Amino acid sequence: MSDSLLFAPGTAATADAVGDTAFAQAMLDVESAWVRAQADLGVAPAAAADAVAAAAVVGSLDLTALAAEAEGGANALIPLLTQLRRAVGAVDADAVRWVHRGLTSQDVIDTALVLLLRRAAASTLADAEAVAGNLRDLATTHRDTPMVGRTLAQHAVPYTFGLKAATWLQGVDVALDALHERVARLPVQCGGASGTLAAVGTLVEGTGVAPLDLVERFAGRLGLPAAAPWHTARLRLVEAAGAFTLLADALGKIATDVVLLGRPEIAELAEPAAPGRGGSSAMPQKRNPVLSVLIRRTALTVPHLMAQLHLAAALADDERPDGAWHTEWPALTTLLRLVPAAAASAAELTGGLVVHEDRMLATLRDAAPAVLSERITAVAAPLLAGVPGGTAGSGPSSPKDRLTAMLATAGSGEAGTARLRADLRAAVPAASLDDAGLDDLLDPTRYLGAAGELVDGVVAASAAAAQHRDTRTQ
Amino acid sequence: MSDSLLFAPGTAATADAVGDTAFAQAMLDVESAWVRAQADLGVAPAAAADAVAAAAVVGSLDLTALAAEAEGGANALIPLLTQLRRAVGAVDADAVRWVHRGLTSQDVIDTALVLLLRRAAASTLADAEAVAGNLRDLATTHRDTPMVGRTLAQHAVPYTFGLKAATWLQGVDVALDALHERVARLPVQCGGASGTLAAVGTLVEGTGVAPLDLVERFAGRLGLPAAAPWHTARLRLVEAAGAFTLLADALGKIATDVVLLGRPEIAELAEPAAPGRGGSSAMPQKRNPVLSVLIRRTALTVPHLMAQLHLAAALADDERPDGAWHTEWPALTTLLRLVPAAAASAAELTGGLVVHEDRMLATLRDAAPAVLSERITAVAAPLLAGVPGGTAGSGPSSPKDRLTAMLATAGSGEAGTARLRADLRAAVPAASLDDAGLDDLLDPTRYLGAAGELVDGVVAASAAAAQHRDTRTQ
Amino acid sequence: MSDSLLFAPGTAATADAVGDTAFAQAMLDVESAWVRAQADLGVAPAAAADAVAAAAVVGSLDLTALAAEAEGGANALIPLLTQLRRAVGAVDADAVRWVHRGLTSQDVIDTALVLLLRRAAASTLADAEAVAGNLRDLATTHRDTPMVGRTLAQHAVPYTFGLKAATWLQGVDVALDALHERVARLPVQCGGASGTLAAVGTLVEGTGVAPLDLVERFAGRLGLPAAAPWHTARLRLVEAAGAFTLLADALGKIATDVVLLGRPEIAELAEPAAPGRGGSSAMPQKRNPVLSVLIRRTALTVPHLMAQLHLAAALADDERPDGAWHTEWPALTTLLRLVPAAAASAAELTGGLVVHEDRMLATLRDAAPAVLSERITAVAAPLLAGVPGGTAGSGPSSPKDRLTAMLATAGSGEAGTARLRADLRAAVPAASLDDAGLDDLLDPTRYLGAAGELVDGVVAASAAAAQHRDTRTQ
Amino acid sequence: MSDSLLFAPGTAATADAVGDTAFAQAMLDVESAWVRAQADLGVAPAAAADAVAAAAVVGSLDLTALAAEAEGGANALIPLLTQLRRAVGAVDADAVRWVHRGLTSQDVIDTALVLLLRRAAASTLADAEAVAGNLRDLATTHRDTPMVGRTLAQHAVPYTFGLKAATWLQGVDVALDALHERVARLPVQCGGASGTLAAVGTLVEGTGVAPLDLVERFAGRLGLPAAAPWHTARLRLVEAAGAFTLLADALGKIATDVVLLGRPEIAELAEPAAPGRGGSSAMPQKRNPVLSVLIRRTALTVPHLMAQLHLAAALADDERPDGAWHTEWPALTTLLRLVPAAAASAAELTGGLVVHEDRMLATLRDAAPAVLSERITAVAAPLLAGVPGGTAGSGPSSPKDRLTAMLATAGSGEAGTARLRADLRAAVPAASLDDAGLDDLLDPTRYLGAAGELVDGVVAASAAAAQHRDTRTQ
Repeated sequence: MSDSLLFAPGTAATADAVGDTAFAQAMLDVESAWVRAQADLGVAPAAAADAVAAAAVVGSLDLTALAAEAEGGANALIPLLTQLRRAVGAVDADAVRWVHRGLTSQDVIDTALVLLLRRAAASTLADAEAVAGNLRDLATTHRDTPMVGRTLAQHAVPYTFGLKAATWLQGVDVALDALHERVARLPVQCGGASGTLAAVGTLVEGTGVAPLDLVERFAGRLGLPAAAPWHTARLRLVEAAGAFTLLADALGKIATDVVLLGRPEIAELAEPAAPGRGGSSAMPQKRNPVLSVLIRRTALTVPHLMAQLHLAAALADDERPDGAWHTEWPALTTLLRLVPAAAASAAELTGGLVVHEDRMLATLRDAAPAVLSERITAVAAPLLAGVPGGTAGSGPSSPKDRLTAMLATAGSGEAGTARLRADLRAAVPAASLDDAGLDDLLDPTRYLGAAGELVDGVVAASAAAAQHRDTRTQ
Repeated sequence: MSDSLLFAPGTAATADAVGDTAFAQAMLDVESAWVRAQADLGVAPAAAADAVAAAAVVGSLDLTALAAEAEGGANALIPLLTQLRRAVGAVDADAVRWVHRGLTSQDVIDTALVLLLRRAAASTLADAEAVAGNLRDLATTHRDTPMVGRTLAQHAVPYTFGLKAATWLQGVDVALDALHERVARLPVQCGGASGTLAAVGTLVEGTGVAPLDLVERFAGRLGLPAAAPWHTARLRLVEAAGAFTLLADALGKIATDVVLLGRPEIAELAEPAAPGRGGSSAMPQKRNPVLSVLIRRTALTVPHLMAQLHLAAALADDERPDGAWHTEWPALTTLLRLVPAAAASAAELTGGLVVHEDRMLATLRDAAPAVLSERITAVAAPLLAGVPGGTAGSGPSSPKDRLTAMLATAGSGEAGTARLRADLRAAVPAASLDDAGLDDLLDPTRYLGAAGELVDGVVAASAAAAQHRDTRTQ
Repeated sequence: MSDSLLFAPGTAATADAVGDTAFAQAMLDVESAWVRAQADLGVAPAAAADAVAAAAVVGSLDLTALAAEAEGGANALIPLLTQLRRAVGAVDADAVRWVHRGLTSQDVIDTALVLLLRRAAASTLADAEAVAGNLRDLATTHRDTPMVGRTLAQHAVPYTFGLKAATWLQGVDVALDALHERVARLPVQCGGASGTLAAVGTLVEGTGVAPLDLVERFAGRLGLPAAAPWHTARLRLVEAAGAFTLLADALGKIATDVVLLGRPEIAELAEPAAPGRGGSSAMPQKRNPVLSVLIRRTALTVPHLMAQLHLAAALADDERPDGAWHTEWPALTTLLRLVPAAAASAAELTGGLVVHEDRMLATLRDAAPAVLSERITAVAAPLLAGVPGGTAGSGPSSPKDRLTAMLATAGSGEAGTARLRADLRAAVPAASLDDAGLDDLLDPTRYLGAAGELVDGVVAASAAAAQHRDTRTQ
Repeated sequence: MSDSLLFAPGTAATADAVGDTAFAQAMLDVESAWVRAQADLGVAPAAAADAVAAAAVVGSLDLTALAAEAEGGANALIPLLTQLRRAVGAVDADAVRWVHRGLTSQDVIDTALVLLLRRAAASTLADAEAVAGNLRDLATTHRDTPMVGRTLAQHAVPYTFGLKAATWLQGVDVALDALHERVARLPVQCGGASGTLAAVGTLVEGTGVAPLDLVERFAGRLGLPAAAPWHTARLRLVEAAGAFTLLADALGKIATDVVLLGRPEIAELAEPAAPGRGGSSAMPQKRNPVLSVLIRRTALTVPHLMAQLHLAAALADDERPDGAWHTEWPALTTLLRLVPAAAASAAELTGGLVVHEDRMLATLRDAAPAVLSERITAVAAPLLAGVPGGTAGSGPSSPKDRLTAMLATAGSGEAGTARLRADLRAAVPAASLDDAGLDDLLDPTRYLGAAGELVDGVVAASAAAAQHRDTRTQ
């Protein structure tokens, strides 16, 4: 079991994937692939590769000792090598000398982190695609579900839940594209002590194999692109981490809205219920929106991790940094614990989101006619003026001011709408606005603009993008 | 002149581009384009568009009053409209009613910020391309210039300055690609009060023009892509800002290296000299690396701005956020002051960088033979052991330990190398390593691995990427 | 007028205090005080001090030129000196040589920043004391005003608005104490080129004045404590900035609550109305909570500025840092623009906060009986069990489960409370709970615990702390 | 063993103290103290307190289950209660109903975090006091050890290592005072569901015990101050965390200097050697400054954690926040892992720091006479001018320009000093500057200003502060 779980609820399923055991195994995988690549090209004997592969299993390590000794070299790979060499020696004494030859600790640690990142991305992509799919469904289903729009925490003009879901979807799609592209680009790290592949040169001397060929083979064994060493060129890593952060941003927006709209006074949305979820230690009646709360926790955390990674890239001095590199590990692994968990929670949240259309409608009707003041002013002022465009006039008896006064005294909800209707009826000749037109003007569900078309556009673009990603994956 | 320049030296040239005057003019440009787009489609009279265009010049605004009144609505657009309407009215009274119709303040502010961002990106791209070009030149020129590699602030193994320049180049190229792609994608913002285009619907009613057509035309007038409203879907903006931040990261790495290698005890690099630069208020002899110091200032600052923007995206609640949106403005404009200035400084820095090859070589030779210990151990240990691969032995008389002892007592520099040569000559039979081979083994300029090929690869990829960006721009 | 105001609404009044003009004048004040201190001790002629004082007025500077030239030395003081010397020379040629003698640019810039910080603190302290006073009044007035408590965005148990105000007050008081103590401790900076006062030694040679005496006098002239140079010991500055940040945190909490409780569906609080405030560019009916929105803007921004300052302190290498120092200036001055403005807004907000007690009570009654479930379970379960402590039993017919079922079916509001009352009346013998007791049990305004005493305690402690601060100031 | 150690080398000793086991035990301690406090006042039977105490041992928990279930309530306490109640029930069935009565989960979690924080502070304070002691020793021993001062990474004027150590000490002392004061002020958290102590009121009903008395007793049992609930008033916690951060800043400055001055080209300082420390996986000769690198790792990390905590305080909405609170836990516990480890490393680093005085002196002499240009100009220009104050003249033949030319052509080191001496001797009559005076003028070890007195002052103040802290502790 991973430690530090009690401080990060909801990450029990993802923490192990980037915990010490997973990281140690990834480092072992890298060391093993390195010897295997040499064997593939005839540089090392196949037996050595076999022996390293046999020994490179995390179960054979003493992780406690390893952790204690990691301070000595300021990284975990150095003591791991001692243990790995011992384990390899127990299998095949001659194979020991092939372990780690030509590499430097950063080659192994960076590549292992890339492996962890790619694995975390796989589940994250799957969950985020599910979120996108759920949001397309919600946007489509509720394409024309009216609700009140809110700006600066106040009622604005009518809106639709479909457009809200489509707005959520926009963010998730940007993150999905980024995640899809950038993680796949992350290369193997292989440069040796200062990045020149000099020791690799020594290693392959006389074998007819070029150092860059061996790097290529090594990368291939791990399923990664080859590249020039990037010991202190960290931007591709920052970019990949940035894609996870974008996803957290997008999910944070969703969760923030769900929490707000799930407040009991609003009650337009609710999280899907599940046994054992949302309870309180003191209050039997409570149902807390814990999925959203934990997604928000993640969204409020990752910006700081991202700043850390940018800073590390900028301070990556010399051929290996004197502290900045070391800040990347916890930042990156925390990101890889939190964001995949948030993606999973968001898939569940959006998949089972409870949408109270009746409540949305009721709130919107209660907010009328004030939420229609923009429309009423635009439409009725010219009619009151008797001439189109007469709104430019001002003074206490200008059409605009008369309308403002009517709106201010009307009150809200059904009664308010009725009162305003009567006032308008009295003021505007039926010739210019008949009863049906007046009803339409005062109906908040008829002032939704192009919301439907906007939803259609976003959903179609999202479906196409998903299709595109899917195609490229296959 | 922009204010706050004394706190941000080096930004005198870029601050104006995102100062209050530039921002106000950009908002006016947006308002003007909006009426012009309507006129293009026959929604508004051409005369109204002409009148707004004539009035929408920043010189006619009272910015002091505008700044004071900005608090009232928590943004600058609301009081700007009052002034703009007054100015339009002075030209053509009837045109007033066309001003801002159908828009909301966020439409204008967001679009204006996009305009500022794109303008800042243009100069930044040009300067960053110059940096990349300079780095390709430096990497090519110094492809085989030996220097000592440094890791964790200590000497590692031999390196080349060409590979260092190529490593710098890797970062700049990632940033350039990101900047090139993401800024171009930033769309117009157009949604009206809550993003449904409802008021636009009222505006075009009966004209046969669809709201989305008007949005398209509006975007076209500003040279921006059209898009669904993104009032609270901020990720494309975050992405574009992230590209500036990546560039700052990449330049920060360069500047950090230049400052370190320009320390008087190292003196391998120096900034280009310029009159009036690098002086001290107290010490006549000082030449401070001010270009690099100011680039580092930027690189140490922008990660925090980026965190701010990620946070704002995550907290973008409802249809317009209650504070998070407002944090974007200073973060974004600070970014747009600092990074373009850093790009310009970096173009000058890399264009005139003084490379002291002699000093690099001297340091490397002084650092020998210790910096060759990896190589010497790999090559000589088997020879001492009398059998290839004999290095696996240990104990005080193992070949590896004997070599470690020789290295430890040899001392450094020419004398140390001579001493070690003598020891090795005595220990290794000439049959297995002749004198020429021994000289080669101890020559730190002959242990550069694949540095040259790595440089070639990075430079070629960079040139191709630059060509690709250039092609797409035309 | 300060620039960059349009990006930071609400700071028009505070930006000037830390703008270029104010900063330049503060640097001039420092230079002037330095010569004056020498004159006081007979080191420099009084005429020189008079000449410098006469010339050291910001109006005589060409700030545009100064800003452009600041890049050359990476700070603004170096070009300022050129201008100052010219201005002094115009008054008294001989006085020129006394300008800046013995100082280094960091002495002047750091001390000038301390002066700006102290001035900003004065207004901030006054406004924050007003906030604390307003909160003591609100807490006292509403000591017993019932409202529903909310946790994780859901209704919890009954609460009082007085306790909420007292909770706000706790934060403000911590910040006030910190601000009060730490700003006063900020010392003059005086060390010369590397902090040894060596040039001061040259300056006072033969005068019988000790360097430290001159530092003391210099500090005295500026009303600051003297101290050893702190060119790269930045923690007292970080601490003072931290106090402003604490205040922003405390005010951010208040503003966040006000925005939430001012949502139309909740409507328990409202910002004080003022002409021209809270309007929308599109919707006539809107009243946006702009004071709170802008306070939140500040609270969401300053944590990042604080991180910047901590980082600068940690990276303050050598005797003057190579970039980290330069990041402090915009971070600090942004802090000094934002937080004093937030304090002023908060004073207005808390001074005029509209508290809708009726709405609070209505919401609380609507939330009953569910919000009393904790209490009802604790009190009634033992009675249902017929024996004290009978709650431990479980199973479908346990008292606790029976109560849970009653609560679940009761519904909410008055009707729900009546239904539950009937159920309980049927289940619990009047001997163990009479009618009055039952009414009390179901009255949400009777389950307020020690809220009143807690308010009293916090208010009394706050008043005492304010008194203590006031005494120490006099 | 704690997990996540491989990503955070050097924290093996401190991670356990804030790991899941420690946190769970702290929560159990809080629950136990709560019942014990009730028993103390006769509210609960002593047997219940005994039973809870017997059961509240972390060994009896299933932490894996607990971690998995923590997501359900978004915190770890809720499932812990289920397990605790089961364990208590096994001891004494009647005691179960006393568990957690009157508390809310935040009461327990916050108080448990305070306990962890206080424990971490104890070791941190001890180590930081050791650092301060070491720095007083270094400052005193090297009070007059000359070295070159460095600003903006270039040589400035002469300096002393004693003053550098004293500058380090200034930072550590600010942090120590802050740590000492603020941690001790952290109170117990006790408020119940929404902070009114309402359930506590039910609990004590009829016992004659007041809720606040029980809180007081509870606090006493845990050795903490009592206080009003601070569920959403987080500033005291932020302040305590800030004190750890200040220490990290101060240590970061030290480590940054040690890494720089330990670069092989400078080699003025070296870390204490220890077996198994500083090795490389590839290069046998390397000795990496790992203590400093890991301290820097911490110093570069904690500013972001601090920003997180400020943000959480600002967003602490309602009576328990909807996500912000949850971000505090990993931020705080990461801080409590990293900073105590850094303090321990710094105690070792400063206790065994190797100071190469010879190298410092050699570098200083090599940097002369340029590093004396300030002094030479100040002293010799008037003499060349033949009149005091003649430096104001300019033009190619002004005294100042003649000196600048002499300095520029002299060259550096002993030869350069000799050349300049000859030039000056020729230019300045012996009557105004005799040979001894000239030697003094050109001796970089004689231009140390008040460095010694400054050291004395800082050391004395530090010793007094340590004494003061020690007295208050006893």
